[in-house]
Amino acid sequence: MDTILNLLPVTYAERAAFQAAAPGVRQIFLPIPTMATPFDPRSPEGATQATVILGNAPPRFLPDFPSLRWLQTWSAGVDPYLVPGVLPEGAMLTSAVGAYGPAVSEHLFACLLSLMKRLPAYRDQQRAHLWQDLGPVRTLRDTTVLLLGTGDLGSHFAALCKAMGAHTVGLNRHPDRPLDHFDEVRSITELDFWLPGAAVVVLTLPATAETYHILDKGRMALMKADAILLNGGRGPAVDNLALAECLRSGRLWGAALDVTEPEPLPADHPLWDCENLLLTPHTAGGFRLDLTVRRVCAIALDNLKRYLAGEPLRNRMN
Amino acid sequence: MDTILNLLPVTYAERAAFQAAAPGVRQIFLPIPTMATPFDPRSPEGATQATVILGNAPPRFLPDFPSLRWLQTWSAGVDPYLVPGVLPEGAMLTSAVGAYGPAVSEHLFACLLSLMKRLPAYRDQQRAHLWQDLGPVRTLRDTTVLLLGTGDLGSHFAALCKAMGAHTVGLNRHPDRPLDHFDEVRSITELDFWLPGAAVVVLTLPATAETYHILDKGRMALMKADAILLNGGRGPAVDNLALAECLRSGRLWGAALDVTEPEPLPADHPLWDCENLLLTPHTAGGFRLDLTVRRVCAIALDNLKRYLAGEPLRNRMN
Repeated sequence: MDTILNLLPVTYAERAAFQAAAPGVRQIFLPIPTMATPFDPRSPEGATQATVILGNAPPRFLPDFPSLRWLQTWSAGVDPYLVPGVLPEGAMLTSAVGAYGPAVSEHLFACLLSLMKRLPAYRDQQRAHLWQDLGPVRTLRDTTVLLLGTGDLGSHFAALCKAMGAHTVGLNRHPDRPLDHFDEVRSITELDFWLPGAAVVVLTLPATAETYHILDKGRMALMKADAILLNGGRGPAVDNLALAECLRSGRLWGAALDVTEPEPLPADHPLWDCENLLLTPHTAGGFRLDLTVRRVCAIALDNLKRYLAGEPLRNRMN
Repeated sequence: MDTILNLLPVTYAERAAFQAAAPGVRQIFLPIPTMATPFDPRSPEGATQATVILGNAPPRFLPDFPSLRWLQTWSAGVDPYLVPGVLPEGAMLTSAVGAYGPAVSEHLFACLLSLMKRLPAYRDQQRAHLWQDLGPVRTLRDTTVLLLGTGDLGSHFAALCKAMGAHTVGLNRHPDRPLDHFDEVRSITELDFWLPGAAVVVLTLPATAETYHILDKGRMALMKADAILLNGGRGPAVDNLALAECLRSGRLWGAALDVTEPEPLPADHPLWDCENLLLTPHTAGGFRLDLTVRRVCAIALDNLKRYLAGEPLRNRMN
């Protein structure tokens, strides 16, 4: 018999839907669920008997859940749960990949338009009470946007770019599969071929050995002198010191980073004072957009129905 | 026999197209046409015999063009040319309305997304080397955008909002005519009814007696406490002192103004230091986007063909 420990920040309606999906099954909810508040998932009565946990229970507590058969995270990344010994032998792990596409892509898109219209520089002028024309601006119309990564984040971002008239080229490891919102899908091995033609280069890559500094000094030199660079995946994919050097030397129209290496960015890092850089502190995703939370809950609810019906789960990570 | 004085910043291809459109007609081009450089339209040889002027010849010189039959501006507004005595009796006046929609709407849209994602505040933090989460952000999905003005600027802006999932309500003086990109078109007399339901209120209105302070203190009080206000039309449509008071008191999520009253905004105006305001110095339009210049030239070329064929001109302003 299952016991479900539901740590998700559910609405009343969602709570009712989770209860209706598991009639007769014990389901324990947190009294005031929120991602921000630190919590001990062992504290609700009977919690440690859980066979199912919905939500990011801190990995250090998981050894106290010996009956756990399935953990559904609210995050898209699940690295801490893949460390050997964290999950009981045979327990399934599923992620909330797919929930963050709208939030992260909209954030990156806002950064892109902001750079194209020189809004960061106009903001600086505003603080100085300066009314001064900064000259030509940019548009996405009839430009090529090159996307390194074509998953949830990349494809949502591509859709936004296409809506504003851009041509989208996605690079990944499986270019044979056609994808919505991409005019072309090519192999990531062709990166050096595509970089010189792109008005915008956007990275939504995970941190792996293959993606480490994939955009290094040499590749930045291949980009158009007035290209725009965006990173919304993981910081190490871009050589940040090379980028700072690049921006300070006047190359590139601008760049936006929501992720850096390391994080937080040290106060004396040269990136902070790059005029044409727009920097946000890894806040594109998370639960900052209510829509994201609703999507996380929908993914978990769908997987719970599959689990109880004995069907294969979506977003399996192990 | 016509003489055409072409002051437009044409490309070589456009120049050839203008010449091809008027075979056998004398057409005088400026050597290095640009909107930024001050110029005397009387200086090219034979210029003052012009029957047609394409471009914003400064009004003070027009008395020296007694044969003028038609003036096509590169601007959307033509107020200076409507002053009695500026144009010869019977001369036609046409504007470039329709050329600026993409540029101004993209600028306003960039400002809107920037506010929704708190980018101005993150920019301020960046200047202070601060890595700090500013909390919840906003999306356009499933929100209502209320547009005061449904012309070239408004309809382009509505299209962008719809592409990101918003419901668009346009207010104008002729709500019986259906318009692309608007889910609903209503009478501007219903403004007070629609204000309380809008997540975003955007003004793209001309400066007239009817639009003066159409968004005043009382109407700002009707807006949602977390609404976003944008003005991309003319400054006097919004009571700027009331807006500053409103923003300082913590009402509204934020506002973006590309136009103010007066312009330039005096250095001691309270708007400058409103944290949640994004201010640009009337730079959304003009010739800052190459695309705009190409659209201006296309409108002028189309009208020249009509003129030479004896057909009615588009964008007649008198």
